[in-house]
Amino acid sequence: MPRGPMRQGFGFAVEAAVPGGPRAGRLATPHGTVQTPLFMPVGTLASVKGVDVGRLADTGAGVVLGNTYHLHLRPGEEVVQAAGGLAAFMGWPGATLTDSGGFQIFSLADQVQITDAGASFRSHIDGAAVRLTPEDSMRIQQSLGADIAMQLDDVVGLPAEPARVEEAMRRSLAWAERCLAAHSRPDQALFGIVQGGLDPQLRRVSAEALAGMPFDGLAVGGLSVGEGAEAMRTTLAATMPHMPVDRPRYLMGVGRPIDLIDGVAAGIDMFDCVLPTRCGRTALAFTFAGVLKMRHARLRDDLRPIEEGCPCPACRHSRSYLRHLFLAGEMLGPILVSLHNLTMYARLMQQLREAILCGAFEAVAAGLRQQIDGDAD
Amino acid sequence: MPRGPMRQGFGFAVEAAVPGGPRAGRLATPHGTVQTPLFMPVGTLASVKGVDVGRLADTGAGVVLGNTYHLHLRPGEEVVQAAGGLAAFMGWPGATLTDSGGFQIFSLADQVQITDAGASFRSHIDGAAVRLTPEDSMRIQQSLGADIAMQLDDVVGLPAEPARVEEAMRRSLAWAERCLAAHSRPDQALFGIVQGGLDPQLRRVSAEALAGMPFDGLAVGGLSVGEGAEAMRTTLAATMPHMPVDRPRYLMGVGRPIDLIDGVAAGIDMFDCVLPTRCGRTALAFTFAGVLKMRHARLRDDLRPIEEGCPCPACRHSRSYLRHLFLAGEMLGPILVSLHNLTMYARLMQQLREAILCGAFEAVAAGLRQQIDGDAD
Repeated sequence: MPRGPMRQGFGFAVEAAVPGGPRAGRLATPHGTVQTPLFMPVGTLASVKGVDVGRLADTGAGVVLGNTYHLHLRPGEEVVQAAGGLAAFMGWPGATLTDSGGFQIFSLADQVQITDAGASFRSHIDGAAVRLTPEDSMRIQQSLGADIAMQLDDVVGLPAEPARVEEAMRRSLAWAERCLAAHSRPDQALFGIVQGGLDPQLRRVSAEALAGMPFDGLAVGGLSVGEGAEAMRTTLAATMPHMPVDRPRYLMGVGRPIDLIDGVAAGIDMFDCVLPTRCGRTALAFTFAGVLKMRHARLRDDLRPIEEGCPCPACRHSRSYLRHLFLAGEMLGPILVSLHNLTMYARLMQQLREAILCGAFEAVAAGLRQQIDGDAD
Repeated sequence: MPRGPMRQGFGFAVEAAVPGGPRAGRLATPHGTVQTPLFMPVGTLASVKGVDVGRLADTGAGVVLGNTYHLHLRPGEEVVQAAGGLAAFMGWPGATLTDSGGFQIFSLADQVQITDAGASFRSHIDGAAVRLTPEDSMRIQQSLGADIAMQLDDVVGLPAEPARVEEAMRRSLAWAERCLAAHSRPDQALFGIVQGGLDPQLRRVSAEALAGMPFDGLAVGGLSVGEGAEAMRTTLAATMPHMPVDRPRYLMGVGRPIDLIDGVAAGIDMFDCVLPTRCGRTALAFTFAGVLKMRHARLRDDLRPIEEGCPCPACRHSRSYLRHLFLAGEMLGPILVSLHNLTMYARLMQQLREAILCGAFEAVAAGLRQQIDGDAD
């Protein structure tokens, strides 16, 4: 799979695609090849919360995401680098991706000041002053050593003033150039990030500009930041025609199962989101037949698993037992339901992929949409 | 292995023993045969905290303990019974044991009133009035359906007035008779519990009286309640000669690795304790070379596992990574170190067993004692 901009050990091939629509592919990395569409579990601090790497592999996960902002603060990239990089540090045998820190600066940091030079802010842990430029982000991500790094971007919460949205988009483009210039690690891919809020014209400008740069993939950023599902779908529809078809396309921080179906339908190849583990910790289980509130009284004597046919460790237990674990405050409840949700997300991606490969995506997606977003029985 | 008092599906055979000293045996239960000496992980609320049953089996665990007091309050024995009993409810394929509630009434409950009839107290969860007689404990434990049930006993914290210690011992004997009379489940073994504080004479009276009753095994209770390691050792030495040799002998609630070596040396076959998981949650790892404080700064760049040669999931990671998990507040730290500690306890039992079988217990125990109770390198 020879590709111009692709870094050493990387490759991306589309196996089947509906023009302008869903596609199935393969992404090769130095740590193995994964199938797309792909959901990437989030291991913020080099740990997918509550899930050991053996169990994580069993969920069907292919790529694990780490957060540059968090890892820079704790334990520091030098500790991760000394251990051989993010994958070695966390004992994960597969591929990894680090985000750039842009989203966490937007969502977590205090006293944020963003200029064209970069971001200055206070750590959310101890208030220490931290500065993050595009060059800093590249240096840190190259030390963390994930297979895929992301450009630093300027992320805006929505709704926002049009001038601020445009400023952030243009600044992200300038930072994209600087990230490419600063990035030198040949065994690490680098993705650009499309910004532009809900404005189709800004999204187009951003996507076309980034498509002309030698990035190994492009992400759609700045969504799932308060705009609502319908606005996200509309923006995605306006953006995707301007995204290159020969490189992987990644929708950042999204989302619910129904959002993944929408994203795949629009031609997205990669997703990440904390929802499967965050909801797992708060007793919400995702199933193909809808969501299940694991603390609900009606589950008290329900001896069925969360989902029939699911191979995860939670589904070796009854709903009655899992409900008991949550009511009793046992940490095994969050552990097991996180494992279930990660498994469900991986199985959903697998079903969508198979549907694409056999030309049945529309029918399969329509069937899934009927139940997946409601309450499970 | 025909034994008079042994219930259906049970058996106990001593394979090798030093007279008056350590012994190796096999305990058959309806859920499989386990080797002794044996450490039993504590699954208070039908969950060994942070450990799924698949991982638990991998630690080498043979019997899991559940707490009658806790399970009676949450989820209630009727829920457990409806699921097919404790093992089925928690998805554990092996044997289980429930304690009687006596220790939790002593250690957890509020406004406890103990009379010859039984105990009345307030739930530590919601303050509800609860009454527990020997007959109640048998009824609840038969509903929970573990392989081994324990008699209700009157547990005294130490130090205590001699009259109170003697009263509790004699009351426990009376309750032992009532438990035997009330217990009718043929597929569940029932153990008596020796009490008597630190008084060798009371311990002897208790042990001899219980040995004359048709219990399937005897436990030493009322230790590890504030008396200190030396007093525990002395009391054990005074008690063991009066314990029957043809039935399993169980030291309840003990303890550190060094205590397990002492207990095995004195002829104990079974142990339980929350230490491996409680210490795992608080970042203390047990190794054959001593204890390791996982938050210690010197582990920051220590790329060694907790213990070389340990097959547990934690020891696939570096100390540096595990330290990071604890400092970052990631729940994976407690999970992994709990797994390590449970594995270490099972391996310690296995080493002691093999030493007994090949006649080398004294030398092996002396070697282990040199390092196991200090600080690890």
